[in-house]
Amino acid sequence: MIKNKIITFGEIMLRLSPPGHQRFAQATSLEVVYGGGESNVAISLAQFGEEVQFVTRLPDNDLGDAVLAELRRWGVGTSCMLRGGDRLGVYFYEKGAGHRNGKVIYDRADSSMATIQPGMVDWDAVFASATWFHWTGITPAISQGAAAACAEAIEAANHHGLTVSFDLSYRKNLWKYGKLPSEVLPPMVAGCDLVLCSMEDAAAHFGILPKAKEDNEMAAIESVSTQLMERFPKAKKIVMTRRSGSDSASQNLGAVLFDGKKLHESSSYQITQIVDRVGSGDALMAGLLYGLLRNMDDQAALNFGVAAAVLKHSIPGDLNLVTVAEVEALVNGAGGGRVSR
Amino acid sequence: MIKNKIITFGEIMLRLSPPGHQRFAQATSLEVVYGGGESNVAISLAQFGEEVQFVTRLPDNDLGDAVLAELRRWGVGTSCMLRGGDRLGVYFYEKGAGHRNGKVIYDRADSSMATIQPGMVDWDAVFASATWFHWTGITPAISQGAAAACAEAIEAANHHGLTVSFDLSYRKNLWKYGKLPSEVLPPMVAGCDLVLCSMEDAAAHFGILPKAKEDNEMAAIESVSTQLMERFPKAKKIVMTRRSGSDSASQNLGAVLFDGKKLHESSSYQITQIVDRVGSGDALMAGLLYGLLRNMDDQAALNFGVAAAVLKHSIPGDLNLVTVAEVEALVNGAGGGRVSR
Amino acid sequence: MIKNKIITFGEIMLRLSPPGHQRFAQATSLEVVYGGGESNVAISLAQFGEEVQFVTRLPDNDLGDAVLAELRRWGVGTSCMLRGGDRLGVYFYEKGAGHRNGKVIYDRADSSMATIQPGMVDWDAVFASATWFHWTGITPAISQGAAAACAEAIEAANHHGLTVSFDLSYRKNLWKYGKLPSEVLPPMVAGCDLVLCSMEDAAAHFGILPKAKEDNEMAAIESVSTQLMERFPKAKKIVMTRRSGSDSASQNLGAVLFDGKKLHESSSYQITQIVDRVGSGDALMAGLLYGLLRNMDDQAALNFGVAAAVLKHSIPGDLNLVTVAEVEALVNGAGGGRVSR
Amino acid sequence: MIKNKIITFGEIMLRLSPPGHQRFAQATSLEVVYGGGESNVAISLAQFGEEVQFVTRLPDNDLGDAVLAELRRWGVGTSCMLRGGDRLGVYFYEKGAGHRNGKVIYDRADSSMATIQPGMVDWDAVFASATWFHWTGITPAISQGAAAACAEAIEAANHHGLTVSFDLSYRKNLWKYGKLPSEVLPPMVAGCDLVLCSMEDAAAHFGILPKAKEDNEMAAIESVSTQLMERFPKAKKIVMTRRSGSDSASQNLGAVLFDGKKLHESSSYQITQIVDRVGSGDALMAGLLYGLLRNMDDQAALNFGVAAAVLKHSIPGDLNLVTVAEVEALVNGAGGGRVSR
Amino acid sequence: MIKNKIITFGEIMLRLSPPGHQRFAQATSLEVVYGGGESNVAISLAQFGEEVQFVTRLPDNDLGDAVLAELRRWGVGTSCMLRGGDRLGVYFYEKGAGHRNGKVIYDRADSSMATIQPGMVDWDAVFASATWFHWTGITPAISQGAAAACAEAIEAANHHGLTVSFDLSYRKNLWKYGKLPSEVLPPMVAGCDLVLCSMEDAAAHFGILPKAKEDNEMAAIESVSTQLMERFPKAKKIVMTRRSGSDSASQNLGAVLFDGKKLHESSSYQITQIVDRVGSGDALMAGLLYGLLRNMDDQAALNFGVAAAVLKHSIPGDLNLVTVAEVEALVNGAGGGRVSR
Amino acid sequence: MIKNKIITFGEIMLRLSPPGHQRFAQATSLEVVYGGGESNVAISLAQFGEEVQFVTRLPDNDLGDAVLAELRRWGVGTSCMLRGGDRLGVYFYEKGAGHRNGKVIYDRADSSMATIQPGMVDWDAVFASATWFHWTGITPAISQGAAAACAEAIEAANHHGLTVSFDLSYRKNLWKYGKLPSEVLPPMVAGCDLVLCSMEDAAAHFGILPKAKEDNEMAAIESVSTQLMERFPKAKKIVMTRRSGSDSASQNLGAVLFDGKKLHESSSYQITQIVDRVGSGDALMAGLLYGLLRNMDDQAALNFGVAAAVLKHSIPGDLNLVTVAEVEALVNGAGGGRVSR
Repeated sequence: MIKNKIITFGEIMLRLSPPGHQRFAQATSLEVVYGGGESNVAISLAQFGEEVQFVTRLPDNDLGDAVLAELRRWGVGTSCMLRGGDRLGVYFYEKGAGHRNGKVIYDRADSSMATIQPGMVDWDAVFASATWFHWTGITPAISQGAAAACAEAIEAANHHGLTVSFDLSYRKNLWKYGKLPSEVLPPMVAGCDLVLCSMEDAAAHFGILPKAKEDNEMAAIESVSTQLMERFPKAKKIVMTRRSGSDSASQNLGAVLFDGKKLHESSSYQITQIVDRVGSGDALMAGLLYGLLRNMDDQAALNFGVAAAVLKHSIPGDLNLVTVAEVEALVNGAGGGRVSR
Repeated sequence: MIKNKIITFGEIMLRLSPPGHQRFAQATSLEVVYGGGESNVAISLAQFGEEVQFVTRLPDNDLGDAVLAELRRWGVGTSCMLRGGDRLGVYFYEKGAGHRNGKVIYDRADSSMATIQPGMVDWDAVFASATWFHWTGITPAISQGAAAACAEAIEAANHHGLTVSFDLSYRKNLWKYGKLPSEVLPPMVAGCDLVLCSMEDAAAHFGILPKAKEDNEMAAIESVSTQLMERFPKAKKIVMTRRSGSDSASQNLGAVLFDGKKLHESSSYQITQIVDRVGSGDALMAGLLYGLLRNMDDQAALNFGVAAAVLKHSIPGDLNLVTVAEVEALVNGAGGGRVSR
Repeated sequence: MIKNKIITFGEIMLRLSPPGHQRFAQATSLEVVYGGGESNVAISLAQFGEEVQFVTRLPDNDLGDAVLAELRRWGVGTSCMLRGGDRLGVYFYEKGAGHRNGKVIYDRADSSMATIQPGMVDWDAVFASATWFHWTGITPAISQGAAAACAEAIEAANHHGLTVSFDLSYRKNLWKYGKLPSEVLPPMVAGCDLVLCSMEDAAAHFGILPKAKEDNEMAAIESVSTQLMERFPKAKKIVMTRRSGSDSASQNLGAVLFDGKKLHESSSYQITQIVDRVGSGDALMAGLLYGLLRNMDDQAALNFGVAAAVLKHSIPGDLNLVTVAEVEALVNGAGGGRVSR
Repeated sequence: MIKNKIITFGEIMLRLSPPGHQRFAQATSLEVVYGGGESNVAISLAQFGEEVQFVTRLPDNDLGDAVLAELRRWGVGTSCMLRGGDRLGVYFYEKGAGHRNGKVIYDRADSSMATIQPGMVDWDAVFASATWFHWTGITPAISQGAAAACAEAIEAANHHGLTVSFDLSYRKNLWKYGKLPSEVLPPMVAGCDLVLCSMEDAAAHFGILPKAKEDNEMAAIESVSTQLMERFPKAKKIVMTRRSGSDSASQNLGAVLFDGKKLHESSSYQITQIVDRVGSGDALMAGLLYGLLRNMDDQAALNFGVAAAVLKHSIPGDLNLVTVAEVEALVNGAGGGRVSR
Repeated sequence: MIKNKIITFGEIMLRLSPPGHQRFAQATSLEVVYGGGESNVAISLAQFGEEVQFVTRLPDNDLGDAVLAELRRWGVGTSCMLRGGDRLGVYFYEKGAGHRNGKVIYDRADSSMATIQPGMVDWDAVFASATWFHWTGITPAISQGAAAACAEAIEAANHHGLTVSFDLSYRKNLWKYGKLPSEVLPPMVAGCDLVLCSMEDAAAHFGILPKAKEDNEMAAIESVSTQLMERFPKAKKIVMTRRSGSDSASQNLGAVLFDGKKLHESSSYQITQIVDRVGSGDALMAGLLYGLLRNMDDQAALNFGVAAAVLKHSIPGDLNLVTVAEVEALVNGAGGGRVSR
Repeated sequence: MIKNKIITFGEIMLRLSPPGHQRFAQATSLEVVYGGGESNVAISLAQFGEEVQFVTRLPDNDLGDAVLAELRRWGVGTSCMLRGGDRLGVYFYEKGAGHRNGKVIYDRADSSMATIQPGMVDWDAVFASATWFHWTGITPAISQGAAAACAEAIEAANHHGLTVSFDLSYRKNLWKYGKLPSEVLPPMVAGCDLVLCSMEDAAAHFGILPKAKEDNEMAAIESVSTQLMERFPKAKKIVMTRRSGSDSASQNLGAVLFDGKKLHESSSYQITQIVDRVGSGDALMAGLLYGLLRNMDDQAALNFGVAAAVLKHSIPGDLNLVTVAEVEALVNGAGGGRVSR
């Protein structure tokens, strides 16, 4: 078996959450998690046994050290890490419950990652022996510098012949530095082989609308996916998540993958107990990448990704701390809350 | 916009609850909440931006001070507070779970509020610039003195031209001082403009039975409401909550309001995750009062109240710590457990 | 009313569980519970007011003392306890959530109970004034010595004229000492009056298959029960639990009891919130025994047992800390998560 | 060795304390301890292996049940327990720290024990096979009824030939029912064989002042002890605790015992870390009783009691959960904070 | 008695601390405190019964709301509060222990208070009915805007005839905006009536050195104080804290006050248990101000301030939640860690 | 600067401790730490920036995985780890307080490390590029197999030319497999360059007694050290720790190092607050090794080691999570519990 080496790049933050179902004003302590879309993917892949490096810029203080320790703990390589800048990005997260929505207060302006500049990372060294690069739409949303560094990374990854995957992950509370996603993203997405985005994002950022009847969801997805591929011809796979649910306590989750010819539809799961939904999209992406890296076919890789995402909902924090065996057991129908003893 | 000033009067207690789903005998610590029907309404209204005063009698010790601090914290006025008496009322509350019912042990006898006497509160000063007075059936259930002080308050409120609202909130473990609700309540209810009670309470305390076929719930409610209005002609609105649910983990919640002519029926919500159900009736009342005070029509005010009560189920403790914007979002269908980021 | 005295015999362990929904690797503390199938039954019966003794072997250290204190706390007699051996058995238990299964790591090898030998317990003294003996299939699965001591106990119990009940409770992670359940169990089961086992266990350990059409579950159960009674003629009642559920968050629970003639089917409950499922089988057995000891008919005793098991799902830890009144209320339909106040 | 049976009688309360060093108004949870002077002595003696019964009156609710469970847990007999009355006594306890004093808010009026009446306890049955009775000055301070029941107990104990010990434990926040200690105590103390009190209490309640020079503490103690014995001729041993310390963080502790002839002076210990000082006086009394019951000479018994009290300061809660071996090790100089491994 | 009204102005931050003695990298949760030098003084004065307003600028989000709730809770007026800007200042605080120093990581750049500008606060309205204004050297250290707003406040306070007090509180990790304290502070201090600073600060920021022999500390203090008064002639009282201690676990604390003629020396306390030392300087200032406002003489006011500061060391968090009676008891020698019951 | 690579070998266990000052029987949860003498040294060296590998044998389950994650988290290399065997060693640790001693219950029999056998570790690979090997007397105390594997390691380390250090760390509760330290240790110690042991151990295990007057401690140490060097001629440095203290709350700590000619005596520190003393000996060893590896002279290295050990007392858990800068600050006198801000 050939060992892959995966690189992810982005911001990891200190997440601070009220315990249990408390609101912010009730909290006398805040639970600590270190998370971010790209590091979540890296950590998830490391749990699956992959060799993975996460690249970011961390402040040179105890909080930056704590992030490094956390990445090491879960087996993610940190040898390409930058240290510098003034602060670790923070986000305050109040979990939702029942009909009450979750709530995020970002406090990440001027973080060490937000003040990164192109040229700081030695991408040739980072990508030297790597095979896959993953990034998300959060990084170019942080700051001009982060967007430029990310564009630089994509270019270098293409130069080094890596496969590049992209998760749009639109965050309306970012994009504050004066540019629109529709200005910044297209040239970056052009360098990607796999794109995960939603119908809404395709419309909003790329102006792509379904050419299909309203009531045929699958046809609409295929139409938008086809247009995305026309627009970004390097992209060979388009993935979309399908979620529904009327409150914070339950959810239906599935996904589809269009390979240019066929629309693969994953199994769908009803999730009736949500411990923590943050990071479930990252879990799906990591599962899908794992499947593809291990040469599963598209359908199997998609099913693996969705099952990984389903399990994420049962784990507190951002991280999908599950093994390949656990995901496979769910894919094979052996969930059900049994206690094995 | 004319600013209203609302007065609520009743007992606030120290609530002590085992953490999580523990039973009393398992608990090595007890969670602290300060709550009571009327103070819950006051605090909820303060979160909605209303000017509200809560009147009660507190012991002159650190626990009484802690109650004052809690009321101030949530923006409720405390300038009319009485200090005196021997102790703060306590109630021990074990949350239910699944098919296990919740359990309350009252330890409120001889509390400072139970030993209040008519004449202690200067109602003319309290009501001087107020527009609304709210009380519940818990206060006359505590002691002869509390009943008398409450009757005095209702009379003074009528004298000062305030609108008076009443929530029957029958507690079978109170009413220990030798009088029945049916003896004490009628003259007090006679001074009220808005009455919230259940079909069972109307039958038990006022002897009012539906003159309608058994299987027509709406007709039965209208029949009982009509008779209540005949009995208490000052009452212009009768409100009833509609709840169903087979265990502690889920619930259907809605309400109806009869305005003398029309029976308004609120939206109904399925609640599949109940964090803490205590205070949901108070949340409904506070939401309804807010709607009426802000000149919503009856239907809109009722919907606002029910949505507020639905959100209460997601918040630990007695207090409905939600904003107007959050309630309106649910009324407008924007719940669903999303994370806004 | 004649007071019964019940004896249970088996291993009680230190259970260590990550708080909330954490995975093992996330835990910075572990919650402490002392539990085991037979002590769970004993403690449950003590909550129902029965006189019950639990017999086991505990190490002579602070952890053994803590177990004794726990048994005393819940009113279980400990006067026949053995002290000795090297260690208290431990099991690490990670609760499941949603689609994630629960997980047990046994660390019970060479425990004081595993190194018990026949002759250590003075069964004549233990059974002197007793009327009922309960054991489970876990004890003979621990070690050769535990199996022999258990066989000795069954023989003595029969000698003293006690009623003997047996719960098969197959644990695939035990049975490590070189013998199969099918070799060890049959002579032991031959001494039992009441047997609780599953269809799978009847097939696996006794080679008994249903002689009935596949799609008729009740007929299949009756067929297997009949054959079990033919095989073990002392057994007058065969009990089987019926469970279904697709994840860790909800469950359907019921049971059947075959008395040689009639198959009694209990009420069935949908459990939509599972606080802790460990010990629910023990809760059912304790409820059933209570019913039979108090001369309920088989149907009523079965219903009592199932309702007890349903309530267990709402209580953290292994122990079913509920009263007779609480079980009866559920049997009589008065659950529903109400708060009584 | 002859086995003694000891009876203690008094009130056990729910103690609620802010965690760590929080003040009352900061606490969002309160730690639960069940304690009281006489039950503390009983539990301590049970840890030393003595057979001991605690007699009190408990409400017939879950909190009363929890107290019973706690007493059973630590091996104290509960077969003479009365159930009835309205509530469990509560006390709120804020630990001191540094120069900040500890603070107690009693909420014990009208507790089940406070509403006890003479005649409720069947003292003949209680004392049937007992050899020692212990009570404190807290019980007659609670209420007229408790004082009368306590007097009844002392009389019965004398009638049955028990040795009677008494700890004055003056509480200025009690004695609210209209009588003074100086009126109530003398006839009760007259029935006692061993008296523990302070110089201040001897002066305040019995009008006994030292006939010795001010600067000779030992002579003063001997003078007061001698007068106490003259006043209460049944008393054969007078014990006084000697404490000093300028803040909540450290303390010097010793004691003296006058046997009518000789003033025995214990070892004195400097305590530089106080985890919880509540119950240290009870620990001393229990240690002293243990020593006397096991026929140590007065000096050895006193040393054992003081060492027990010193260890109590290291244990959270009211209870002195130490063994005879641990106390003896300290008496023999083997403390020092070593870790034995 | 004439009621004073006090105004304090500065930044209040979210303080996040690892529980107990954990280091940052060990923490899985962080304890929440809202504190800052000037709000600490305000809250302390409110506990003493003074009418006090705290002025700052808070972000318009849930964390800003939580700060408001905290201030209201402790009785501090918030009617002059500004809302706006991007974020609440944060500081991470790791408590020291034994020989390990405490550690602070400031994350307060670009906070709502740091981006305040002169003109934002309506000082005429703020000071309308006030008698005293208190500020610290932290505010001009935050940013140019904060310095300018603070200078504006001092000028307005002088214009309105308020007494002005100043605590230098030098923070080496601030002063990052390009100016030195020695440039910024002198014109601001010129408007102050009472100055608290250290010998080191007098030297570093004002170039004032003692004209006295090295080994005479009191003469040195008097010399520096005299020069400070010459330099800032409006100042009528100079206060200096005297601290010593070789580790995080103990401390000696006292203070001196020079009134231009006499050097008053306070009682000195040995503190052998430090729960939380943050805010002890603010506690001293608040106590001193209280004494002066209540017309104590300088010596008594200084003693009151020092005793308040001593008590602060026993309370977790930044806030000195003690009453006048508790401080007076310590002044009068009634500390000692007694439990009053 | 030449980078060293250090190898440590031994057992790492799951440590379970009651929170705060609770006794075992009071604990409802146990705090989780992963620690052991040799891994503590490794983790401490990694915090100082050294490259270090820890070698042990871990079970192939979630607890073994958690240990790996913990080692990675703190930067210790794990590439030579063995997986296999049945269980992770456990020790239960009750912290001491005041005059109460700490208490350890070992539950480590038959752990994966105890069942290690010579030949399992490929020492040639482990030591290939290493310069230093550290082991303790705990490993040969565990089991015959562990002793043999350890002897094998020492031989290989000598073969590869590594410097070998040894900490005797006698544990009376181990050495259960039938051999005495005096039989097993001498040939192993013969391969060591640096030996840390106590006077008692030198006497007990090697029969070496001081040839010096009783009252001259330094002469006695020199005498014993000289004899140790004669007995084990490879040893070039003998180190002894000097501790004193009468309770769990304070301690004096220093050390001496004999280099064959001169007895170096470290600074001595009074420690008045002990958060957790476990691992302080390992901290001293790690600090000393760091100093020697960085070419400090013996006196400086010893001072660094002692200061590191002093800081350890302030940190919860087994691990000395301090940096070189923090140790140097204490060596240079800059402790004192200051808060740097």
